Amino acid sequence: MSVPKSLAIIAGAGPGTGAAIARAFASKGFAVALLARTASNLATLESEISQSGGTAASFPTDLTQPRALQETFKSIQAKFPESQLKVAVFNLNTRWTVKPFLELQEEEFNGVVQGQIGSAFRFSQLALKDLKKEGGTLIFTGATAATRGSAKFAALATASFAVRALSQSLAREFQPQGVHVAHAIIDGIIDTERAQAITGSSVSAATGERLDPSEIAKAFVYLHEQAPSAWTHELDLRPSKGKW
Amino acid sequence: MSVPKSLAIIAGAGPGTGAAIARAFASKGFAVALLARTASNLATLESEISQSGGTAASFPTDLTQPRALQETFKSIQAKFPESQLKVAVFNLNTRWTVKPFLELQEEEFNGVVQGQIGSAFRFSQLALKDLKKEGGTLIFTGATAATRGSAKFAALATASFAVRALSQSLAREFQPQGVHVAHAIIDGIIDTERAQAITGSSVSAATGERLDPSEIAKAFVYLHEQAPSAWTHELDLRPSKGKW
Amino acid sequence: MSVPKSLAIIAGAGPGTGAAIARAFASKGFAVALLARTASNLATLESEISQSGGTAASFPTDLTQPRALQETFKSIQAKFPESQLKVAVFNLNTRWTVKPFLELQEEEFNGVVQGQIGSAFRFSQLALKDLKKEGGTLIFTGATAATRGSAKFAALATASFAVRALSQSLAREFQPQGVHVAHAIIDGIIDTERAQAITGSSVSAATGERLDPSEIAKAFVYLHEQAPSAWTHELDLRPSKGKW
Amino acid sequence: MSVPKSLAIIAGAGPGTGAAIARAFASKGFAVALLARTASNLATLESEISQSGGTAASFPTDLTQPRALQETFKSIQAKFPESQLKVAVFNLNTRWTVKPFLELQEEEFNGVVQGQIGSAFRFSQLALKDLKKEGGTLIFTGATAATRGSAKFAALATASFAVRALSQSLAREFQPQGVHVAHAIIDGIIDTERAQAITGSSVSAATGERLDPSEIAKAFVYLHEQAPSAWTHELDLRPSKGKW
Repeated sequence: MSVPKSLAIIAGAGPGTGAAIARAFASKGFAVALLARTASNLATLESEISQSGGTAASFPTDLTQPRALQETFKSIQAKFPESQLKVAVFNLNTRWTVKPFLELQEEEFNGVVQGQIGSAFRFSQLALKDLKKEGGTLIFTGATAATRGSAKFAALATASFAVRALSQSLAREFQPQGVHVAHAIIDGIIDTERAQAITGSSVSAATGERLDPSEIAKAFVYLHEQAPSAWTHELDLRPSKGKW
Repeated sequence: MSVPKSLAIIAGAGPGTGAAIARAFASKGFAVALLARTASNLATLESEISQSGGTAASFPTDLTQPRALQETFKSIQAKFPESQLKVAVFNLNTRWTVKPFLELQEEEFNGVVQGQIGSAFRFSQLALKDLKKEGGTLIFTGATAATRGSAKFAALATASFAVRALSQSLAREFQPQGVHVAHAIIDGIIDTERAQAITGSSVSAATGERLDPSEIAKAFVYLHEQAPSAWTHELDLRPSKGKW
Repeated sequence: MSVPKSLAIIAGAGPGTGAAIARAFASKGFAVALLARTASNLATLESEISQSGGTAASFPTDLTQPRALQETFKSIQAKFPESQLKVAVFNLNTRWTVKPFLELQEEEFNGVVQGQIGSAFRFSQLALKDLKKEGGTLIFTGATAATRGSAKFAALATASFAVRALSQSLAREFQPQGVHVAHAIIDGIIDTERAQAITGSSVSAATGERLDPSEIAKAFVYLHEQAPSAWTHELDLRPSKGKW
Repeated sequence: MSVPKSLAIIAGAGPGTGAAIARAFASKGFAVALLARTASNLATLESEISQSGGTAASFPTDLTQPRALQETFKSIQAKFPESQLKVAVFNLNTRWTVKPFLELQEEEFNGVVQGQIGSAFRFSQLALKDLKKEGGTLIFTGATAATRGSAKFAALATASFAVRALSQSLAREFQPQGVHVAHAIIDGIIDTERAQAITGSSVSAATGERLDPSEIAKAFVYLHEQAPSAWTHELDLRPSKGKW
């Protein structure tokens, strides 16, 4: 089987949304580079995609580590030397806790905020250098916290507003150069195995109570497939029964 | 040929965006009801859709007239008694002029503002009654003026903010009831014949300098095809080279 | 006693916020023209202001009636021929009801929406013609509904978004010409007699649970007193304990 | 002369806006703690305030250094042991450059982004602990870049969005506890000595072409003086002739 000509990098390909996005682009014929911290998760996903006839490779890495990402991009190129980067997705999940502001340790705050911003910065620079060559799409996964700073959500809101700012600034700079930059606001609970375990699995995504990761992934594919005459920079995605 | 089971009503099916949206839903197998003021334009579009194997019918009407729309909905039902309304698009174009506020006559201001708001209100009520039955999608075409009130754009901004407010309010009320309500912000010059005539046709939509009506139409079809677990209420659409 | 050189027109000077704004400008030495529907309320307010040493005159009028406002402006000028308009406040309260959209009659919707928009349009035109002469301030009282379209709030949201659009558009056109145009977002329950009657008067504005009309009024005076080198177009006002 | 009972800390009291804010609170009878990097500037300002009969003390410090601020707060308390913190202003100016994103070094980006966010976080925690005791006001100086990510402004936009997120989150958490948290969007060129040197001083702030620092400062004093029944979280400030 020949290697696909188009490459998609999914930064944050853990179980849930990231994995669904990876599957979606693989099924569209992209070689998919899977980046996340936990090697075993990536291996499972890689194997699943391969068995479905797709092309994927795992690159276990901690995106928040300043030097790691540049090495990873080199490894990706070494793995897929004939493929051109067309899609780059920044989907980093950082653990955070709802917590009174005065109880928040600086390390914890930085872990979320600098973790998100630093990795978004580095990922964007590395991806844009490649995406500029033939055009392509850079998508950031955002959240409700990107538009509203709620009480006890200081770390998440700060990180999410910041990533949204970066995505807007990049859209305005790089869209005229042929790179579509989009920001997806995921507004609601995603129906992951973890959410099912916590809440009981009786409520299914099909009822419009939770976000189905594979439907989020379809939106990302749609964004990439938009023609340059009508690009979307920002869209929201929420379950039909979600409160907002 | 059997009549399609699903019906789409395009309120504002004039040349350009409205016609493109009509074509797009017709090609997806919808019976399409075409509403606009100029009968001859509708006849041309209806004939074009029919020749492509689609199903369409024209309903010439002035959407801004309070009583006209109710009659039109009855005529549509009489024409397509077996079809269920699944998609309703509000795409009214009102003529307006960039004009210093103190030179704006009240009639002119009302023509734009009450024209838009009144017809959006009536269209929404009539469409939602039907859309609620089996679920469906109500889409409003909006503009940059829906998020920014510029100097000398008082009438357009007032109308556009108002329609956006209506669409948000309806989304929050009807999405839990199964009707997807979306607002598309069209940000840029649409590549219509009129725009080509004014500016010279040398600049093509393919270069990302203008919005291609058929690409806008694809976004509307996409919105309808989203699953209830990940509905978009608002997205922007602009050419890659557009300033914003 | 000499008549003040500066005139403030309060369109919507009914009990509560409007009356408080009138009192505040009167105490700053403005002649205050009081506009509202109920003559008896205005008479009480006028008398109260006069007894405090201020200058006020009542102009009972229905702001939503197309022709009424022009006559009222003539009457104001006849009453205060030596005073120059410096402050114009649009503070129209329209009765509206939280109501499912499909139960909303067109007359009711129009009553709120066209009532607000039409009177805002006419008031703005008449006021700006005078305010332009020597500079001054035009302030619109807005609400949370100006930034968020909630379920069952279609009429209020549509009207409030529209007025905000108008105020933005006017700010961008008239501020360079010397007229400060501001939009105040009142976010919360105002501590009026009516609110006290409904909820019981035990909760006082001083605790930060409700908005005190006289504190809102101070903000309006502050906006007028800003120097042209640092004008505020929009501010929010809410009680410290308000949820938002 | 007795030491004032109320203390204001101005974090970022350099020439221009910060100095003007310090002067404004000093003239209202606050003891003012002046924080900035350059000791000589602070000394000049402190001396100027003292000669006007005010109370001020200089605390030269680099706000972006993690440990510095805690020491500074201790020094402030040692200097003004009888004064209660009532006003805390975060007005950090970071040098940044309009620069294509791909030319931005990570150190430079971090200098702006982590510099702003980290110091805003630490300053907020230290200030809120004191402000909670008797109530008070925490104000963040923001910019247009807090609401719009422009091309080549990635660092400034990212930092400014982030600080705005923090301020919103803190307002929602601490306002019910009696601390007023506000975010001022300064939209335009401030008429500092530096701006005058760059552009020639012929254009004066009085004409509404630039922001006068002392008028910005009045807005900060106004925010502090608002009663809890009508607090403003966000306002914009721009010169009357500013484009926006």
